Amino acid sequence: MSTFYYTATNTVFRNFLFYVILSILKMMIMSLLTAAQRFRKDAFVNPEDIIPKKGKTVLPTTSDPDVERVRRNHLNDIENIIPFVLIGLCYAACNPDSNVSLWHFRIFFFSRILHTISYQLSLPHPSRVVTFFIGLIVTVSMAIQTLVVS
Amino acid sequence: MSTFYYTATNTVFRNFLFYVILSILKMMIMSLLTAAQRFRKDAFVNPEDIIPKKGKTVLPTTSDPDVERVRRNHLNDIENIIPFVLIGLCYAACNPDSNVSLWHFRIFFFSRILHTISYQLSLPHPSRVVTFFIGLIVTVSMAIQTLVVS
Amino acid sequence: MSTFYYTATNTVFRNFLFYVILSILKMMIMSLLTAAQRFRKDAFVNPEDIIPKKGKTVLPTTSDPDVERVRRNHLNDIENIIPFVLIGLCYAACNPDSNVSLWHFRIFFFSRILHTISYQLSLPHPSRVVTFFIGLIVTVSMAIQTLVVS
Repeated sequence: MSTFYYTATNTVFRNFLFYVILSILKMMIMSLLTAAQRFRKDAFVNPEDIIPKKGKTVLPTTSDPDVERVRRNHLNDIENIIPFVLIGLCYAACNPDSNVSLWHFRIFFFSRILHTISYQLSLPHPSRVVTFFIGLIVTVSMAIQTLVVS
Repeated sequence: MSTFYYTATNTVFRNFLFYVILSILKMMIMSLLTAAQRFRKDAFVNPEDIIPKKGKTVLPTTSDPDVERVRRNHLNDIENIIPFVLIGLCYAACNPDSNVSLWHFRIFFFSRILHTISYQLSLPHPSRVVTFFIGLIVTVSMAIQTLVVS
Repeated sequence: MSTFYYTATNTVFRNFLFYVILSILKMMIMSLLTAAQRFRKDAFVNPEDIIPKKGKTVLPTTSDPDVERVRRNHLNDIENIIPFVLIGLCYAACNPDSNVSLWHFRIFFFSRILHTISYQLSLPHPSRVVTFFIGLIVTVSMAIQTLVVS
């Protein structure tokens, strides 16, 4: 067990900061993508959001397949990226090897990018499942290392 | 780049703590608001939650508009407040100006309060969209500053 | 107010790390449980996930009661465990008593385990509500102590 101070000068922490910010920005982009799909498909869920169009009545909907696909992807990000960040914060506090930890962060981030591509393009299996599990394994690996060290 | 220790004596971090706690408590209140709407509208989703009433059969529902509005608002908080806290933690570690960072935290918090008011009262556009984007811009601003400094 | 360095050698922080990791792993297990229920009930939401079976057409569904029960439980974890971790991080930074804080973390973790058991077995009220509120009270208690000290 070793002492660790969270500082922006520590290499592990700086690498962590970088991938945390990229991962969370990626997650936030899903909000904008949802909005884009709602406009594209005229599929709004709040009555006050509907843009009146002449000769066409648009009703609120919660079942447009394209909108719901982005929303499921967004929720999947929340379910996986936030645990990565929180467990990663614990992991980074346990003084891991700088190189090993960097590869954990890198693999996680790119697995989530590939997961989103697989999900949004409805790629054939097992691409989405594999990318999901790669991210999960990285997070569990950091969790186990933290439990062992602490 | 500068060294920064997370301590409750650091002004930036203390301001951050204060707004993190207010923002998360605000988010948690949405759970209680959902429960309140479920009771008010007799709109329960779990069969075991339904309170039997004589002469009236209550079925589980996932489509009550008032309940679903609170739940969407809650999910929107999760999608925005948690990224604010996690990116804010990285930002606070990069030794930002005490005044500039305080205004980031303040503006974010009040934008989310106004967002909830707009959402729950179904205020006419663009109030909800504007308050949403103010919060988003604050978070992105902190993300960019962290990426630049780190 | 006192100075506090986040280090893996600090007792409060080490206890915190331990319960954060257990709580988040518990939350992540809900993903696997959702997948297990989808396979058990043939209730898939993405068309590309459906396994073709002869003599039986399986359509995408978002309304299987067993799948939706796990998903609501997962979302409830997100709504409660993540606030616990984030407020707990602030609380741990304010130099709380080691014993008092340990009991906060312990009670929270076990309340969420019991909450999940109550939810998934549809136990009669008020077991689920009571376990939910115990977790909520722990988090609010940490929030108030942080606001008072900081």
